[in-house]
Amino acid sequence: MYHQSHVVMTYLIETAGDPADMATKIASDQSTGTFVDLPGETPELKARVAARVIALRELDPADVPSIPQATPKAGQKFRRAEADIAYPIEAIGDDLAALMTITIGGVFSIRGFTGIRVLRMTLPDAITHAYPGPQFGIEGTRKLTNVWDRPLIGTIIKPALGLRPPETAELAGELIGSGVDFIKDDEKLCGPTYSSLAERVEAIMPRIKDHEQKTGKKVMYAFNISHIDPDMMMRNHDVVVNGGGNAAVININSIGQGAFLYLRKRSQLALHAHRNGWDILTRHPGLGMNFSVYQQYWRLLGVDQFQINGIGSKYWEPDDSFVRSFHDLSQQVGHTDEQPMPVVCSGQWGGQAPETFAQTGKTLDLLYLCGGGVVSHPSGPAAGVRAVQQAWQAARDGIPLNEYAREHSELAEAIKKFSPKK
Amino acid sequence: MYHQSHVVMTYLIETAGDPADMATKIASDQSTGTFVDLPGETPELKARVAARVIALRELDPADVPSIPQATPKAGQKFRRAEADIAYPIEAIGDDLAALMTITIGGVFSIRGFTGIRVLRMTLPDAITHAYPGPQFGIEGTRKLTNVWDRPLIGTIIKPALGLRPPETAELAGELIGSGVDFIKDDEKLCGPTYSSLAERVEAIMPRIKDHEQKTGKKVMYAFNISHIDPDMMMRNHDVVVNGGGNAAVININSIGQGAFLYLRKRSQLALHAHRNGWDILTRHPGLGMNFSVYQQYWRLLGVDQFQINGIGSKYWEPDDSFVRSFHDLSQQVGHTDEQPMPVVCSGQWGGQAPETFAQTGKTLDLLYLCGGGVVSHPSGPAAGVRAVQQAWQAARDGIPLNEYAREHSELAEAIKKFSPKK
Repeated sequence: MYHQSHVVMTYLIETAGDPADMATKIASDQSTGTFVDLPGETPELKARVAARVIALRELDPADVPSIPQATPKAGQKFRRAEADIAYPIEAIGDDLAALMTITIGGVFSIRGFTGIRVLRMTLPDAITHAYPGPQFGIEGTRKLTNVWDRPLIGTIIKPALGLRPPETAELAGELIGSGVDFIKDDEKLCGPTYSSLAERVEAIMPRIKDHEQKTGKKVMYAFNISHIDPDMMMRNHDVVVNGGGNAAVININSIGQGAFLYLRKRSQLALHAHRNGWDILTRHPGLGMNFSVYQQYWRLLGVDQFQINGIGSKYWEPDDSFVRSFHDLSQQVGHTDEQPMPVVCSGQWGGQAPETFAQTGKTLDLLYLCGGGVVSHPSGPAAGVRAVQQAWQAARDGIPLNEYAREHSELAEAIKKFSPKK
Repeated sequence: MYHQSHVVMTYLIETAGDPADMATKIASDQSTGTFVDLPGETPELKARVAARVIALRELDPADVPSIPQATPKAGQKFRRAEADIAYPIEAIGDDLAALMTITIGGVFSIRGFTGIRVLRMTLPDAITHAYPGPQFGIEGTRKLTNVWDRPLIGTIIKPALGLRPPETAELAGELIGSGVDFIKDDEKLCGPTYSSLAERVEAIMPRIKDHEQKTGKKVMYAFNISHIDPDMMMRNHDVVVNGGGNAAVININSIGQGAFLYLRKRSQLALHAHRNGWDILTRHPGLGMNFSVYQQYWRLLGVDQFQINGIGSKYWEPDDSFVRSFHDLSQQVGHTDEQPMPVVCSGQWGGQAPETFAQTGKTLDLLYLCGGGVVSHPSGPAAGVRAVQQAWQAARDGIPLNEYAREHSELAEAIKKFSPKK
């Protein structure tokens, strides 16, 4: 009954009190409630716009509260429950900012939680249909790179900071010649004084075009066009388009949702999302939100390629969390068939290809991004790219890497250099 | 030596390892470091762009980690330290999105923390001078309302959701006549189908203009113009301007930083910031960030009026946290003298005036916002406004509220209705 008329949110509630009371409080505070009775708040009005708790599933209590409490009592337990709350679409409209304010933002301020996390979100078409979604998702990215039968292999310009444009172009030239499908600027390179975007585009794009002339292969280069000012970001976008580029890195949390949509509505580039800052919203399992919720916003706003870490990431994120993220991206959101390309990254070098393949539904629809794992290969970046391609061939064919490496020397070298030391 | 050449950040680090190692890891990861040595990364390059740990102050260890750990050991301690890290401005440039990515966003992803919080941020002029700051801060808000010698008294249209524009205008009319200085839409009212912004402006603004004609007093009405789409938000802005309005509510986290700056650059309205969603970034004391850091971003981007809760808030936030936020807003950020007007709100009714006055440096430069505390006064909203004004007169003159209430019946009624029950 709630399918198209309501947004349904699932919260993980933790409290020293009664989770059922807290669920009711969310529904009340985030729709019609306030701290005193009000003139004008008729039963009819409440019925029309009130949010409702439609299910509550109590979980095992916690011994330690997610948020430390000033006066803990010995042996105190903190009750936990999952609560499904339905918000009438009539009270929200189709604005994702209203959705965020009502169903997420305000909830985090409510007194009495020792923990609160947003686990799931189900959106009616009235909301999803109002947003563009990806312009160049899996299909679009494959078309632009003309790579169809295997994961795209990507790499990153390293060092992240400090290189001047000619030095960057030198490195980029070597990577373009390596056979890689995709290259990106580091997320930290947002146009510092020593390396303006215009100079980098001017230095790098001719090398990509030359390579395309010679080989027929157009490497996708994602320039970092992130800027807090949407006017500046659009100028950056135009610099890349005018230079013949077809992709851009966006630090989505650093520019914010509205600025991203502003770009997406005008964009001719594949938008590669780096989600730095996201971790603080998900790292504590009792607080913040699940990626399944977060990614729905950004997909509706139009992310084309979504970085989600990988197996054996160098960051805090455990493998099972990455696997869930990959799965989330494969779920349909809204009306569009186009899904964003999952970008598997962080500490990748090919060694994780078999487990990545096994854990993500044996799909090859991903961009596999290796920084040091490509550029620091003992025989150079071209060998690094071949090693990663070999690892994915082995994964696809179910051949153990060590076995495949016997006849593939680049993979053998990579295994020797990059395998975790026992 | 770092004053104008570096951004200096202070982090609260918590780890099962050595805090000094983790501080070094932040500095390395967020400037030149990666997980393998790289060609091209010369000592000269590192010297130019590398971040550096400039101080480390170890604190008492924690018994319980801020983020739960999979394999806790009995009696294990989690070491804590404050680390000051200096980032060369040359590596960042003046873009606040780059600043966020490098000094905050990326830090939250680093492996090995059991807690990480951003405590302080000191910005060089090279960054602060690039941003507009408030257009109508304390001074501008006082000019627009012509209230000079006392706090502005504000109220909120309640119920938050469900009223149609004529009903809203009816309520607004009563509030306009009550002597209040400021009225705002609820943050949750972002233009649902039953109450479009255009209809509300059309219904409400004539009442404000009539009141101004009759009394000379122009009530500031902040219409909620928040929208995820900056194009739509600008359209909303223009609807308010064309209707003769002078203020707007913005759900800053729900639209994001870039969209807010986009609006600020074009705005003719005083921008009243509701920070819903902020709580999840600060509620756990070992994670996220302090308001002192967060507010610097939004002030530079141009917030004119900043909601910061109040004494005895209905939300989770304790009084001392509100007092620190008020203090943070009084600190200079960048070159502009104009400071945003602190908006003291949530569960306010006048009873908190004496403590608010005492705890915030005895200033009257604030907007004191009462929802139910005005509209649910037993003798109606006009009496509610007078009660709040009386409470502030008593606070300013150092007279206990109960004593002042003997000769001020509206305050006496408010005390009787709203005082917390013992």
